[in-house]
This record gives sequence, structure tokens and C-alpha cells, in this order.
Amino acid sequence: MLNELKEKVYRANLDLVEYGLVLFTFGNASCIDREKGWIVIKPSGVDYGRMKPRDMVVVDLEGNVVEGRLKPSTDTPTHIELYRAFPKIGGIAHTHSTYATAWAQAGRNIPILGTTHADHFAQPIPCTAVMAPEEVEGDYEKQTGGVIIRTFNDISYEHVPGVLVRNHGPFTWGKDPEDAVYNSVILEELARMACLTLAINPETTMNKALIRRHYERKHGKDAYYGQ
Amino acid sequence: MLNELKEKVYRANLDLVEYGLVLFTFGNASCIDREKGWIVIKPSGVDYGRMKPRDMVVVDLEGNVVEGRLKPSTDTPTHIELYRAFPKIGGIAHTHSTYATAWAQAGRNIPILGTTHADHFAQPIPCTAVMAPEEVEGDYEKQTGGVIIRTFNDISYEHVPGVLVRNHGPFTWGKDPEDAVYNSVILEELARMACLTLAINPETTMNKALIRRHYERKHGKDAYYGQ
Amino acid sequence: MLNELKEKVYRANLDLVEYGLVLFTFGNASCIDREKGWIVIKPSGVDYGRMKPRDMVVVDLEGNVVEGRLKPSTDTPTHIELYRAFPKIGGIAHTHSTYATAWAQAGRNIPILGTTHADHFAQPIPCTAVMAPEEVEGDYEKQTGGVIIRTFNDISYEHVPGVLVRNHGPFTWGKDPEDAVYNSVILEELARMACLTLAINPETTMNKALIRRHYERKHGKDAYYGQ
Amino acid sequence: MLNELKEKVYRANLDLVEYGLVLFTFGNASCIDREKGWIVIKPSGVDYGRMKPRDMVVVDLEGNVVEGRLKPSTDTPTHIELYRAFPKIGGIAHTHSTYATAWAQAGRNIPILGTTHADHFAQPIPCTAVMAPEEVEGDYEKQTGGVIIRTFNDISYEHVPGVLVRNHGPFTWGKDPEDAVYNSVILEELARMACLTLAINPETTMNKALIRRHYERKHGKDAYYGQ
Repeated sequence: MLNELKEKVYRANLDLVEYGLVLFTFGNASCIDREKGWIVIKPSGVDYGRMKPRDMVVVDLEGNVVEGRLKPSTDTPTHIELYRAFPKIGGIAHTHSTYATAWAQAGRNIPILGTTHADHFAQPIPCTAVMAPEEVEGDYEKQTGGVIIRTFNDISYEHVPGVLVRNHGPFTWGKDPEDAVYNSVILEELARMACLTLAINPETTMNKALIRRHYERKHGKDAYYGQ
Repeated sequence: MLNELKEKVYRANLDLVEYGLVLFTFGNASCIDREKGWIVIKPSGVDYGRMKPRDMVVVDLEGNVVEGRLKPSTDTPTHIELYRAFPKIGGIAHTHSTYATAWAQAGRNIPILGTTHADHFAQPIPCTAVMAPEEVEGDYEKQTGGVIIRTFNDISYEHVPGVLVRNHGPFTWGKDPEDAVYNSVILEELARMACLTLAINPETTMNKALIRRHYERKHGKDAYYGQ
Repeated sequence: MLNELKEKVYRANLDLVEYGLVLFTFGNASCIDREKGWIVIKPSGVDYGRMKPRDMVVVDLEGNVVEGRLKPSTDTPTHIELYRAFPKIGGIAHTHSTYATAWAQAGRNIPILGTTHADHFAQPIPCTAVMAPEEVEGDYEKQTGGVIIRTFNDISYEHVPGVLVRNHGPFTWGKDPEDAVYNSVILEELARMACLTLAINPETTMNKALIRRHYERKHGKDAYYGQ
Repeated sequence: MLNELKEKVYRANLDLVEYGLVLFTFGNASCIDREKGWIVIKPSGVDYGRMKPRDMVVVDLEGNVVEGRLKPSTDTPTHIELYRAFPKIGGIAHTHSTYATAWAQAGRNIPILGTTHADHFAQPIPCTAVMAPEEVEGDYEKQTGGVIIRTFNDISYEHVPGVLVRNHGPFTWGKDPEDAVYNSVILEELARMACLTLAINPETTMNKALIRRHYERKHGKDAYYGQ
């Protein structure tokens, strides 16, 4: 079964490259086996072209390597924090995709300006607070998880499956790694559209009724999109 | 004959992806058999990679499924309204293409700034009004057709074969689905050029005489473009 | 020999598509046989995918078709005017490439901001004046040539091998059609760079000495670039 | 051994094209054999498609051709100056990549706005001063090296492996030509992200602690990124 998860995580990491979200090794995807409490994640700084499914690393929720001869992604402690705090997610993706990263660098939430956004995220995509020097200097990657989790104190991680880490870039999640990658692709496109929209009309807005309608038609209890 | 239309609609939907106008399943194309009063349209939320011509759904002008085992696109009621109101069109395409959607999200008409625009659309490409909460909460997709049709009260749908739905994205039409897709490609390029043009010079304008000349040389009664 | 020119013009037209400068049929390239006074040009509105070298049309400097079963490009009278006024050019290309067209629509000369520009164009790339209604309503395509030629009253067409036609798009030229296409590619990249540069710093400038040095090292009598 | 270096330099030059950083022949990459004091560099103005590894030119640190039937890149004197002044570098790349060149044309340092930047460059990427007319009119390419070196009077070339030459474009370096190309790719992406970031929020900043943490985790003495 771990081989199946490794294959999925491997595939998700390559998909990040294929969708144009990742340059060189600037990203990572993972999944969790909730029963065992094991996370499968990309190894750190390995060329995607040479990477094999068997290179994926298995760690437990304390960050101990359970299986694998390579070091796990440096961002593993961030993934662990998110898996601990968001019990319904099964996969996470992290990229430095261009437009989402620009919003993260700008320190701005991505406002909800159209139905493409409302179809996938029920609210603006939040940008985290600036991390304090002591958070950055200590167990930084774990604290990155912490600042994300605090951002979701008043936001549902199920209805808003992604975040911008201030001055860093996006993390997205979903029911499995494929779903997390899907949300990374959407987030990048929303970031691009929002950037262009505000260049054309900085004052534009969107009605609450339309946001709700679109989110509900895909995700509500009476959803009627798809088969 | 329906097989031929299904093949055409299938092909038009794939073309939207090939031209880079559609991410995942964010779009749809349809055509109409005016004699029978039947519309052939893409099924809802089906992966374009797995879709086959036989998956296209046939509905009548009341929205009843005439043939097909899948649910038709959620946007079918919008297509129906347009086929009813615009008697000379034979195909419709809907996308969330990046620049056209940015203009729709900005709530601005695309101004006519050059001959590329005037070669295809005789006037600015209009953006619809904001839909009222009661329109959004009721039979929303039908009302989307309604707000488009009202936008064309004073504009010829034959000379301006496309529209931006406010906070949503573009719809285009033509004599068949291929023509509708062609107009979607043009609309996206016009949206991109207009965005860049106004960034360079927000005050620029275009003479009426030049607009008329270019539209007429391709579409007027003395048209002399092409073979 | 005409077959050779047809092959060259055919190839130049396809290159415009391959370099991403032309959507559908929005462009044309031509060459001239100076001895015979014959121009070889793309036929009007023919799909580039189906076009063959033998479809190229031969016209004389009065615009009479010398050879070919198809109508020549609608823009043929513009090409003729340029070949008449600029005796040293052997090829012309016309596109609606995105960034160059945005500058043309904005009605602004492309300023000379870097060595990439100075390596190829000795001065800013000029934008023509707005054409008067009587020019647009009469023999419009010939008058388009006229407004270009007047733009070069005080500019050397040899040192500045391209122009932006106001509210329309770029024309470039060179010793042959391949060279004209090359200049179209460069012009598009210069247009894009200038647009981004002014977004970053609207006040930036470039020294005359550096402009001269770069233009001269490639095109001056003591040129030392290349083999 | 020179054949091996020629192969490397050849490959680096082609990689610049594959990464989309170089149009036609607008760039060059080189490496140095520190023991012999020989530099291997691309020939001047040769079409990348026809170029072979054996066409690479070998010059000594005085600029004399040691081996090769073609003229070396016009920018060779700039490379020589950098190899002389920066003793730990083994390869150099020069491009006119779009966004980095836009910053160079704008005459602005690329500010450090996110972790993607801090992962690779410890500080803003500096833009050189405007060169004086006498520098431009004399041994211009050597003086280009000079103005770069002066820019690094107070900056470590090891921690900031690249520069923008004012009104020209980027130069990057590294332990070998592959590493220099890698830094060119990163620099272009940083330039693009910074441009977009400032369009979204011109006032944004990044904490020193976060910059230091990210640079150190990849390049510090306790670096823990990668295998």
C-alpha cells in the first residue's frame, strides 16, 4: 500500500512541473495514511528528472523517517503541522508558482472577484501574518505550519483549501495529493486573473449572492455541477 | 446527422483546450439543429481527456434531455436562452479564458482600440450588468441568459458576436461551434491587447472611420477580405 | 526563380506563426524581384495550415496580378507603396503581434531603453499619425503605405527597419522576407521589454553614447559583431 | 580536457535557449580552466541551431585566441574581467532575458521580496551605474566588466551570483557554466515575480530574519537543504 502512495506522491510532484508551477526543485507534494499516521513526501532538493517513486520518503507525525534512504523535504515539518491541524485532508502541495507567490510577496489576500474563484474557494485566499524573528530563527518550518493554522482560526480549511505564506508562496491541500495539485493549479490561475482584474479596475467587487451560488452549486449539499 | 453535430461539438470543446482558453473542465461549447430545435452540448464536469463524441448530450429548447446518458453542462439553460433570442446563431462557446475573464471581473466593456478588434467586432465588447440577488438565487443559469440578452437590446448580436458576463467570463457565438470557438480565441486576444494598450496609454482612442472601414472590409456588403 | 521566391515567402509566412506573432491569418509577408518589378505575396485570408508555396500570388508594382489563382493579401497596396519608396528593401512582414500592436493601439513610439533595441534599431520605433477619414475611406491600404512613408521623412528606413501603424500594428522590412520576419520578432520583444520597463520605472532613460556604440558595433562601417 | 569544457559550454549555451532566456544569438556562456588560465566561450553571432561543440573558442586571459577558427563572442572582454576579479567562479552566462532586462533597462536593483530570492541571492540583485561616454566609446566590453566589478565593491560576488548591467541585461556566474545558467533562470524568475509583486503592492517588504534564514538553510555552514 505504501508503494501505491509513493507512486501517487511521485506523480503529484511531477504534475506540479507539468502544470508549470514548479521550477527545478522549488516545490513538494505529500500524502498521509491516516490509519498508520505516516506521511509520504518528496525527498529534499532532488532533481525531478532523476527522481523515482521509490525515492519518496515515509515519515511519522513526529517527523521520524520510517522508510527511505534520502532526507525528506525541508518543508516536512510544515506538512506535519497541517496534517495534525486539518484532520480531513489527505494531501498537500507547496509551490513557488509565479502569480500566487507574487501575492504572497505582496502580503495581500487574493480577493474573490469572479465565479472561477467562487467555484473553488468560498472566500478570499488568505495571506498569513509576517512571522516573528523568533519563529523564523527557531524551528522555522514547524512555525510556518503554525502561522498557517492560526490564519484558519476563523476560516474553514475545507471551504478554503489553500493559503499564501507571507513572503514565501502557496500551500494547498485536498482529499489526496492529486486534489492538492488541482487546487495549486486553480490558485495560480486565480492569482493571475485577480492581478489582471485589479490592473483594469482597482475598485471592482463581486456580490455575496453570486459567490454563494457558485460555491454551493459545486460544493453545497444540493450541488448540481458534474455527473 | 446528430452524430455529425456531436462530433463537431466534441471537436469545438477540445479546441477550446488546445487554444489555451480552458483549464480542466471550465468551459463548454454547443450547437443547435434549428429544424429539430435540438441542442447538442458538452456533458457537465467531464474530464476533456476522457470525453468521447458520443458523450455529448442532446436537449430540446425546454431543456429536456432528448438523448445521452450524462447530465448536460450546468450552463445549458444559458445556451438555450441565447439560441431562443438570437435566431441566426448556430453555435455557442463559453470559457473562463484569462484576459477576457479579467475584463468580466473588472466589470468593464472591452474598448475598441485597434483594427484587430474592428476586423471582428463592430463595437466594444459589452460587459453585462450585475445580476440581482433574486436572479442569482432563482433559476440562475437561465437568468444569465437573460442578462446577456438585455445587454444586446441596443447592440446587434450579429455584429458583436460575444459578451462578458459580469464577474464570470465570456460567451461567444457564431454560425456553428467552430465559428464560436474562433470568436472566443479572438476575444481573448483582444482582451489581452486592450489590457496592455491601456497600461501604456490610458487615454488612447480610435477613429470611427477606421473602425467602420475594417469591419466593413471583412463583413460589409462590399467585403473584399479573403477569397 | 519565381518558385524560389514563392518558397521563401511561403516559409516567411509560416515562420510568423511559429514565432507566435500571427493568430489565424492576421499577417502577411512578401518579397520583391527588383529586376522584374514583381512582388510575391501571401494570398488573402487563406488558412496557413492549408496554404502551399504555389498559392503565393505575384503582382506588379501597379498591383496587377501577374500570376496566381488566388486574390493577393488585402494589404498588398501597402507593400507596394513601401517597395516603391524604400528602394533597398527586399522583403516586408506585417503582423498583429500582441505587444507591438498594443504600442500601435496606444499611439506611442517605442522608446529606446536598452542595448537589445540599439543592436537592431538606431532610434525609437515610430508610430504613424492618425489617418484622416478621407484617407481611410478612399484607397485605404495604399494610404496606409503613405502614412508610413511620411513617418520616415526624417528617419532612415535602413537604420529603423520597422514601424507601428496607429491603431493597427507593426510592419517591418529587410533585405529579404527572412530578414523582415527577423525584425518582426525583434520588434515584438522590444515592445514587450519596453512595456515592462516603464511599468517598473516610468522615468528611465538611456545614454546616446551607448545607443550609438551598440548600433555601430553591429551595423556601422567598423562593425565587429558576428563572424 | 578542452573537449570536455567545449561540450559543457556548448550545452550551457543551448540550455539558455531551452529555458527561454535567449532569442536568436542574444546571449553567451563560458567557462574557465583556472590552471591553464584559458577561457572557453561561444563564437560571436553564430546561429545556435548550427553551432557545434568544436565551434567553441578558447582564449587566454589577455583575450588572445588559443584555439578555434571562429571569432569569440563580442562580450569576451567582459567575461575575462569577471574571471580575473572573481577568483572562485568557473562559469559565466549572459542573456537578454525579458524580465531581468526590463529591470536593467529600468535601472533598478531587484529588491528581495520573498524566499525564492533569499534561497539563491543573499541580497537585492544590483544594477550597475550608467557607464560614462568615455567608457562606452573606448574598450567598451572591458569597461562593462569594470562597472560590474565596482558594483561588487561592497557586495559579495559569492553570495550574489548575478548582476544587471544598466540599459543592457543580466550576467550571472557560478562554479561552472551549468551553475551560471541555473542562476540566469532563477534571476529571470525573480525579476518576473518582483515586477508582479510591486504591481500588486508597491509598499511590500521582507524581514531580515527571514532572508537570512532562507539563504543560510541552503548556503550557510549549517545548510540543511538537499541531500
